[in-house]
Amino acid sequence: MGNNVIHVPLGNSSYSIAFTGLADLPSRCASAHLRIGPCIVVTDPNVASIYLDQLRATLISSGYAPITEIIIPSGEASKDAEFLQLIYDRALTSRIDRQTPIFALGGGVIGDLAGYAAATLLRGLPLVHIPTSLIAQVDSSIGGKTGINHSLGKNLIGAFHQPTLVVTDIEMLQSLPDLEYVSGLAEIVKHALIADADFVIDLSANWEKIILRDRKYLDHMIMVAAKIKADIVSQDEREASLRAILNFGHTFAHAIEREAGYGKFTHGEAVALGMRAAAKVSYLVNPNLPYTDINHLLNRLPIRNSIHHLDPMTLTQAMYFDKKVDDGKLRLILLREIGSAYVSTEISEEQIIIGWKSIMSP
Amino acid sequence: MGNNVIHVPLGNSSYSIAFTGLADLPSRCASAHLRIGPCIVVTDPNVASIYLDQLRATLISSGYAPITEIIIPSGEASKDAEFLQLIYDRALTSRIDRQTPIFALGGGVIGDLAGYAAATLLRGLPLVHIPTSLIAQVDSSIGGKTGINHSLGKNLIGAFHQPTLVVTDIEMLQSLPDLEYVSGLAEIVKHALIADADFVIDLSANWEKIILRDRKYLDHMIMVAAKIKADIVSQDEREASLRAILNFGHTFAHAIEREAGYGKFTHGEAVALGMRAAAKVSYLVNPNLPYTDINHLLNRLPIRNSIHHLDPMTLTQAMYFDKKVDDGKLRLILLREIGSAYVSTEISEEQIIIGWKSIMSP
Repeated sequence: MGNNVIHVPLGNSSYSIAFTGLADLPSRCASAHLRIGPCIVVTDPNVASIYLDQLRATLISSGYAPITEIIIPSGEASKDAEFLQLIYDRALTSRIDRQTPIFALGGGVIGDLAGYAAATLLRGLPLVHIPTSLIAQVDSSIGGKTGINHSLGKNLIGAFHQPTLVVTDIEMLQSLPDLEYVSGLAEIVKHALIADADFVIDLSANWEKIILRDRKYLDHMIMVAAKIKADIVSQDEREASLRAILNFGHTFAHAIEREAGYGKFTHGEAVALGMRAAAKVSYLVNPNLPYTDINHLLNRLPIRNSIHHLDPMTLTQAMYFDKKVDDGKLRLILLREIGSAYVSTEISEEQIIIGWKSIMSP
Repeated sequence: MGNNVIHVPLGNSSYSIAFTGLADLPSRCASAHLRIGPCIVVTDPNVASIYLDQLRATLISSGYAPITEIIIPSGEASKDAEFLQLIYDRALTSRIDRQTPIFALGGGVIGDLAGYAAATLLRGLPLVHIPTSLIAQVDSSIGGKTGINHSLGKNLIGAFHQPTLVVTDIEMLQSLPDLEYVSGLAEIVKHALIADADFVIDLSANWEKIILRDRKYLDHMIMVAAKIKADIVSQDEREASLRAILNFGHTFAHAIEREAGYGKFTHGEAVALGMRAAAKVSYLVNPNLPYTDINHLLNRLPIRNSIHHLDPMTLTQAMYFDKKVDDGKLRLILLREIGSAYVSTEISEEQIIIGWKSIMSP
């Protein structure tokens, strides 16, 4: 296996993540033993306008036909029961069987929605992720989480369904809007902080290249970040334990998104703020933590809005809506040191409020 | 483990089927490490009128509270996206977390629907089956298949989600309507024909006790039938190979249900007819098969309606709608001998039509 392929070992559900670009898709499909024939492509209009012609030509050239193309409106609002039903209707009308692959071409929304359709159509179809956003390339396309939102919260309906294959084209990041690019950076910084101290130093030292989207540095950064995620999920496929550390900053972030109103912050902005609060709480519990260094890195992630107008108490209460609440107790991910995270259920509301206040002062 | 408990070994997804009755539920829940606290019960009005008071009292006595009771209209039509959404809404409003168990009290429809809700709420909740019909006790509660229907066909949307526990009360069968009881018998005969020649002899010799619902014989019969199912599914959790033999008669049956119109035949009646056709085709391929003996047993399963008015060619075409069609080829389950079944993709349409005609002559 080349040095631009990551293998995710999960027994019968093992798969490869190939950072080899869209042109390499046919040979990767062959290696993954995907059946050539009819297939389904799910994407959104923004992505379709740039990449669908190329994907279609690539698929047809390797024998995939007919292709059922399903275009879902861009944006988080499409990750719901209505568009799921649309995929079901279109897919079932096209006479799929259990070997018919679904290609998810897009960012996190398309990956989650098409992935969940693949998880549940005929009790499971082969799924190929072609992640087009930074967050999808280093995070959401890896690990098998799929799902849709419910009016009561995000990702409340879903399934674990491992992809058969992930094919990533890092060149696609050059066309990504700044806001989405920065949103993905937050998850990369998170991967580094929870699992790889060297990568934290590496990122800090190369921040200018990151902002300039230096292709050579991106190749390196994305492989390292994706490998961290792949290593964690392959040790804990169903989120029984270790995988929880990937939620560093996320319980705070979900409360921010909920209380500020969805759309006010990108997910990455909310995660960046959430990590700052979680770092503060970590520092309260572990006074040897180099909090200033961590905060310096986190402050490099630009955030357009503030949460100064929100009430720390209300935000704290909103944290209890998180899916990971266990028996009414908050489970927070804290840093023991840079590159090492753990789950704590011992944090008081007073400590959490100090965390909130630390990201409210200007 | 007592001799009235079957263990289904599936690694992390292993579970027990206890034929110990509803009163034994609390101790079984404790053994399965289900969390005591809030829980959800899904059932239908028919079952609720007989058993819900008893289940509620049993749950409350062992500390389960509050109980969110969700009553779904009886019948196959409830196994759809609308009632799935109803379960989602009620469950999420009651503030579940990932340890909140769902108790599915009912027959196949409730088990499939509540099971699918459990598979997909928060990406998977603990599921306890309390099967009340014969078909649920020996077949649908075992093996982890969950799902709902789509307007284009039955069970087209679904997931594999193993229960945490199955608690079966054989006494409940005494209140089952004849039509449903006989429908379940068809699956028991199927289990015997595909996997256990001695059980075929046993069933044939005790048919009168079966019809009279002799409690002692039922205890034996249901354990044997459930054990056959459990053995097969534990060797092939995701229906990759062996498990296909459980579809003996079912590709024919699905075509009958589709062409006659759903509701004209019970599932068991369609399966009984389908097994007769599949036995005929098996006999064409394997002339040493004791077809007369098999047919004698199958003819004991009463069927209220006939398919004389349907066209064998149309029925054959309808078989291609089956979920198990692979690359456009029919995969039929045939008997090699009594107690041994296999998958064949080599059957001609002429042979299939001889099968259909064999169940059309009076």
